[in-house]
Amino acid sequence: MSEEQDVIYIGNKPPMNYVMAVITGFNMGTTTEVILKARGRAISTAVDVAEIIRNRFLKDTKVHAISIGTEQITPKEGGNPRNVSTMEITLKK
Amino acid sequence: MSEEQDVIYIGNKPPMNYVMAVITGFNMGTTTEVILKARGRAISTAVDVAEIIRNRFLKDTKVHAISIGTEQITPKEGGNPRNVSTMEITLKK
Repeated sequence: MSEEQDVIYIGNKPPMNYVMAVITGFNMGTTTEVILKARGRAISTAVDVAEIIRNRFLKDTKVHAISIGTEQITPKEGGNPRNVSTMEITLKK
Repeated sequence: MSEEQDVIYIGNKPPMNYVMAVITGFNMGTTTEVILKARGRAISTAVDVAEIIRNRFLKDTKVHAISIGTEQITPKEGGNPRNVSTMEITLKK
């Protein structure tokens, strides 16, 4: 790969935590592309993060690609695996 | 517009309610394209709906486009407008 990519996993923290991580990634100068990955309820947070970056902080950031998918998660306690939705948002500077 | 489009607004109901609405739309035969629209926390549900349709019910359905955005909502009680994230998923048969 010729361009550097950063992957940021979105969890249950407030959106601003991830916004700061993305801005840091871009400002280090080695990354032109950041991929936000989220599952389940965190998908909404991932969209919040992308929108906050675009509208408030780095206005030249483009949403390059969005993809959705499904993963099977097996609970640690055992039991049947269940499906969880996933999303990836690729941001480019 | 030459093709018929259906728009389905995703809210707080269980995903299967919306899955049924999409399947009904496609099966009526007049629609080749369904757009799922969601805001805030319902964005995760919209992804669930698209994935359940693709993986379980109508396997020839393609995710044609996904877009994200921001809307300003003014609370009914008054007060400052706040930003809410939005998403549109376009499904094609």
